[in-house]
Amino acid sequence: MVDLTNKGPLGFNKFNAVEMATKIASGETTSEAIVSDCLERIKVRDPDIGAWKYIDPAYVLEQARTLDKTPHKGMLHGVPIGIKDNLDTVDMPTEYGTTIYPGFRPKKDTLTVATLRAAGAVILGKTVTSEFAGPYPGPTLNPHDTNRSPGVSSMGSAAGVADYMVPLANGTQTGGSVIRPAALCGVYGYKGSFNHLDGSGIKHLKPSIDTLGHFARSIDDLELMRCVLTGSKFKTLGSENKIKPRIGICKTDQWHAASLETVKMIDICHTVLTDVGVSITEIDLPAPFTKVMEKAFDDIRLWELFIAHEEEIKHHLHEFSPWLQGVVKHAEQYTDQTYTEALEEAKGARSILRVIFESVDVLITPGALGEAPTNLKGMPVNNFNNLWTLMYVPCVNLPAFTGPNNLPVGLQIVGPQDQDKRTLEVALWVDQMIAKHFEAYPVPIYQ
Amino acid sequence: MVDLTNKGPLGFNKFNAVEMATKIASGETTSEAIVSDCLERIKVRDPDIGAWKYIDPAYVLEQARTLDKTPHKGMLHGVPIGIKDNLDTVDMPTEYGTTIYPGFRPKKDTLTVATLRAAGAVILGKTVTSEFAGPYPGPTLNPHDTNRSPGVSSMGSAAGVADYMVPLANGTQTGGSVIRPAALCGVYGYKGSFNHLDGSGIKHLKPSIDTLGHFARSIDDLELMRCVLTGSKFKTLGSENKIKPRIGICKTDQWHAASLETVKMIDICHTVLTDVGVSITEIDLPAPFTKVMEKAFDDIRLWELFIAHEEEIKHHLHEFSPWLQGVVKHAEQYTDQTYTEALEEAKGARSILRVIFESVDVLITPGALGEAPTNLKGMPVNNFNNLWTLMYVPCVNLPAFTGPNNLPVGLQIVGPQDQDKRTLEVALWVDQMIAKHFEAYPVPIYQ
Repeated sequence: MVDLTNKGPLGFNKFNAVEMATKIASGETTSEAIVSDCLERIKVRDPDIGAWKYIDPAYVLEQARTLDKTPHKGMLHGVPIGIKDNLDTVDMPTEYGTTIYPGFRPKKDTLTVATLRAAGAVILGKTVTSEFAGPYPGPTLNPHDTNRSPGVSSMGSAAGVADYMVPLANGTQTGGSVIRPAALCGVYGYKGSFNHLDGSGIKHLKPSIDTLGHFARSIDDLELMRCVLTGSKFKTLGSENKIKPRIGICKTDQWHAASLETVKMIDICHTVLTDVGVSITEIDLPAPFTKVMEKAFDDIRLWELFIAHEEEIKHHLHEFSPWLQGVVKHAEQYTDQTYTEALEEAKGARSILRVIFESVDVLITPGALGEAPTNLKGMPVNNFNNLWTLMYVPCVNLPAFTGPNNLPVGLQIVGPQDQDKRTLEVALWVDQMIAKHFEAYPVPIYQ
Repeated sequence: MVDLTNKGPLGFNKFNAVEMATKIASGETTSEAIVSDCLERIKVRDPDIGAWKYIDPAYVLEQARTLDKTPHKGMLHGVPIGIKDNLDTVDMPTEYGTTIYPGFRPKKDTLTVATLRAAGAVILGKTVTSEFAGPYPGPTLNPHDTNRSPGVSSMGSAAGVADYMVPLANGTQTGGSVIRPAALCGVYGYKGSFNHLDGSGIKHLKPSIDTLGHFARSIDDLELMRCVLTGSKFKTLGSENKIKPRIGICKTDQWHAASLETVKMIDICHTVLTDVGVSITEIDLPAPFTKVMEKAFDDIRLWELFIAHEEEIKHHLHEFSPWLQGVVKHAEQYTDQTYTEALEEAKGARSILRVIFESVDVLITPGALGEAPTNLKGMPVNNFNNLWTLMYVPCVNLPAFTGPNNLPVGLQIVGPQDQDKRTLEVALWVDQMIAKHFEAYPVPIYQ
């Protein structure tokens, strides 16, 4: 993978969130120094990448200085965080990736933002989201290659974390909006179980499907933020649980769209995990899953999207992207029954998935189709994400592989619903096994 | 795959050998007309490709005209054939890919050539071989992309058949000299079981390992030439034997060197064959195979090569390639015991392979590492061929896939020793199943 540390100024911004929090708590450095290095990096790199929608350096530095003088507030005391611009911030504009809300100032923070602030985080700024966090392409570019897409929709958060502008940033996922950009930008990404991270206060929320998640440069950082957002006690992962996980490989019915590097990645995983004594099961998802993905997912997403944007559709339809205008047109033909049936079908598939998870601890599957696409205007039909969002299960992206252009190729670890901590733990173990393998056999994936 | 039919003149030279033989026998056309179209193609295309070492158009046309006036001699009556320039021809120079024998005229044909002539074939000319049919790169270029290698060592034969210069050409294989160029040039290739095709009269023969084979643009043509060379009755394949074959996938210990397109190819095969109801077994070769490939193969090849070139080593060492000079130096340290042990080890591995073939009819494995390499001077360390040559089993290359550059990617079908006809039959069936799959799902392999 391209080493982004050489691409711009690197001071305290190189550290992970856990390291920053520790260094601030011990007095080794200050929040101001860290935030200042992050801002410096953004100043140099962001003109080429476009990860940030809003940032006010003076205001952010003031927040940091205040925190440096304040007694320890919580696990993120002084640590800068990027907030996706579809989450309301009371002190910064929130524009939802559309032209409909220029400079809009929400009356209050969403719960996520409020919780992060309460834990002492410095809200560094708002990261670019695609239009209403939907699949229509947005303006951010991939920090590894600015001719390529960083992936929609939490594109600014993924690019900002990948490029060492900020150690943590949050995202939301309706289809693949966290895991895909994490895979394409080469960072760790985590989408929680449905409702595991509370989405209260999110405007335009699609209530049966939108899920929160976040990006980091280590799995411990993902866990740290998960603990903050769920009010749990944080503990470094991997110290417990020495029993080898049971692992399934799940290629899904999207496998035909996997790129060459993705096929090779899964093949290497098979070798690596077998070599360390894991018994791998190939999981063929039964027909109900295909049915759900062919229709129910869209029925739910498009209907809920239609409801969530009722106001904007009434007054601002002409400002919608061509895609969103098409959705609106299509959604008008929906009925309550279509929607109710789709919800039932998804529920049915979830119950089958629970049975599958009785024999494996996690599934491994690709995070994205392959390396980041050069088509910046494309909306790929296929992905390895929609299914897992609809299944309500926790997903982790591991930036463990690279492809023929030396760009990130993401491996996705999927766990059982509400087993978020255990899934992160297994993800860490798998990540370590792959790293060990590449130490022993430093054969690039693209050979 | 690049359509080579558009790249030069195309008349009767577009037909396969079976078609040519039928058209000549029925009087629909003449050997002269066919040979004339082949020569025309060679005149236009060969300056860029370099498949032919020797060709005398006037003499060849005379042969064809004579055959047109002669009663039917055999299954190849009037059909032009290319002969690799390591096989002696009494009426054409034979130079063995070296500068040591300029214009050398052997006193007689090798058995292969004599048998082909007796069946009525027109010996069109001598095709380029690398030095003594060894792994050191030769001058021929790949007809699909003249910046790429056609694969050693039967390079002229593979390139000539691929480019419609000739419908059939023979080859010899010590390591991967038939299957690899077939895979890289995108033609059907067949290496027989050891001694299935009689190698009598081959100069420089490595007696425990050199094996004959040939190239064609259809599997029936491979079978036709096999029947001619073994004195069997030819019958179009696939009419009998309706029982589904049992198939093993054998990735071998060379799998880490497989290119991305090769990994995808084997993955697609898994899907295709499972879809048509074949139960696939993954065959992990046990340790003795790895041992044999790490040492015994080279011990046998290099020692026999040393013996076979005794005369040339004595008088012409300075004309050897750097590689061959290195081999000679190395071989001087060998002992009889090293060689005898290696032969025993190979024998042991063959007996294990016989057991493996009790539960599967064929193994599928790659024909080469991937698409043709751009490195024209390289001698790749890894291949998917040496093992099968040493195991004495029949191998068929199917040009059924393409890679990211739209170049051929070969699938290899390996059968049990002396089951050559059955192996060709199963190869045909697998080829048809893959073709059907790509008809239904025309997704390019490089997506």
